[in-house]
Amino acid sequence: MQQIERVGVSLEKVLLSKFDRLIAKKGYQSRSEAIRDLIRQQLSDERLADPKAKALAAVFVVYDHHSTKLMEKLTDLQHHHLLQTISSLHIHLDEHNCLEVIVLKGRVAEINRMADSILSRKGVKLGKINLIAAEPG
Amino acid sequence: MQQIERVGVSLEKVLLSKFDRLIAKKGYQSRSEAIRDLIRQQLSDERLADPKAKALAAVFVVYDHHSTKLMEKLTDLQHHHLLQTISSLHIHLDEHNCLEVIVLKGRVAEINRMADSILSRKGVKLGKINLIAAEPG
Amino acid sequence: MQQIERVGVSLEKVLLSKFDRLIAKKGYQSRSEAIRDLIRQQLSDERLADPKAKALAAVFVVYDHHSTKLMEKLTDLQHHHLLQTISSLHIHLDEHNCLEVIVLKGRVAEINRMADSILSRKGVKLGKINLIAAEPG
Amino acid sequence: MQQIERVGVSLEKVLLSKFDRLIAKKGYQSRSEAIRDLIRQQLSDERLADPKAKALAAVFVVYDHHSTKLMEKLTDLQHHHLLQTISSLHIHLDEHNCLEVIVLKGRVAEINRMADSILSRKGVKLGKINLIAAEPG
Repeated sequence: MQQIERVGVSLEKVLLSKFDRLIAKKGYQSRSEAIRDLIRQQLSDERLADPKAKALAAVFVVYDHHSTKLMEKLTDLQHHHLLQTISSLHIHLDEHNCLEVIVLKGRVAEINRMADSILSRKGVKLGKINLIAAEPG
Repeated sequence: MQQIERVGVSLEKVLLSKFDRLIAKKGYQSRSEAIRDLIRQQLSDERLADPKAKALAAVFVVYDHHSTKLMEKLTDLQHHHLLQTISSLHIHLDEHNCLEVIVLKGRVAEINRMADSILSRKGVKLGKINLIAAEPG
Repeated sequence: MQQIERVGVSLEKVLLSKFDRLIAKKGYQSRSEAIRDLIRQQLSDERLADPKAKALAAVFVVYDHHSTKLMEKLTDLQHHHLLQTISSLHIHLDEHNCLEVIVLKGRVAEINRMADSILSRKGVKLGKINLIAAEPG
Repeated sequence: MQQIERVGVSLEKVLLSKFDRLIAKKGYQSRSEAIRDLIRQQLSDERLADPKAKALAAVFVVYDHHSTKLMEKLTDLQHHHLLQTISSLHIHLDEHNCLEVIVLKGRVAEINRMADSILSRKGVKLGKINLIAAEPG
């Protein structure tokens, strides 16, 4: 168990009541939990601004599975010497399109380079990449 | 096979040579492929601005697997009546933290509501959500 | 003066010390101020997701001032019946390019529509738009 | 006048007709203009990923003008030795709040550092920063 500290925060009443309404809508059980999430998100964003920071990423790709050899190429890319592919998930969307989610670990700059080389492949129609800082605290 | 049309585009020489350099760096084999990707991305972003648009989403969550019953709650949330969870992927990160990637299909507004109710759970440390328009064209 | 309320927040020690380091780096004098900013930002983002919300916007445009009549068109656009242009700022960047910052007030959907009609003009090279919720609290 | 080159782009018919509808809605007069804008935006984003890249920025700040000496501090910050403040625009929003738009020029990393030191000031309620690559091509 991690040690917990209790800190006092001063907030304008109006701001506090708007915040309470928002977090109730989002489903939070407590203000502390909502504030912890804001802080963790800010810390993660801050670390990811450094290209050398360690991160976890999910590369999310929609592609045409008739494209010759794209799947083999995707598999090859997953054996990248600077990145560690943790897992990948393949989903059949319709008769043309597949969705692949590739979860990997590595430095921000390497992850972005790999995402570019996936998204630029012929047959890859759409892609997005999500990064979060490793060691989420 | 989809029908292909060829269109002419006028570009300033300087802009074209900068673009050629960028797409070579990203790994594109042709200008057409790079321009198609820009267009698909813009169309997807445009459609996702409509809360009623159909979308695919990957919810990407880091959480403490010691949190009582979080996993059951995540599973419950996946049996949402307005959303279709297609698949989910569970990864053990370290002795405290797990990563879960949940791929789902539904309207943008419903997906965002579900993501909020996941991210607001106690024990969920970080989360991000990626949306892409369904029917990627 | 607004009324201030003091609330207690529980945070893991490790998270708190990382946060303290980050906000010192950013120049904050107190944790309360940093947490208030996170909360205000979240509330603003939340409200701006509603196309009908009232917002302030800065449209930021780089354009070629040799383009025939672009400036007149920009001026025309500023007399939009659903939006209130508060102010605009014109900067000469170099012999070809000007930067115009247009500050306006209105509903999110109307602001986005106006930004589109500015950015799509021939001669407009780059543009971005910043929105913040009106009534910042 | 810049030299223009004409290039051919192959696009699926369905994708092209969706794109044509989108750009008509946005107000574009020609496909070339819409594609040029996508390319310029991608080039600008790419360059801004480099902390050493030269950029133009608009820092957009809402603050309480009763905050002691905030305005003087903002003015001081504008005499930063590594950044060049080009212009600034001050708007009275209501009896409490002012909006200040500060346009500056410099390296991405320096601009972000300055934005942090503005946004962390007591009395500054909300802020956003827009960057575009200098030399927009």
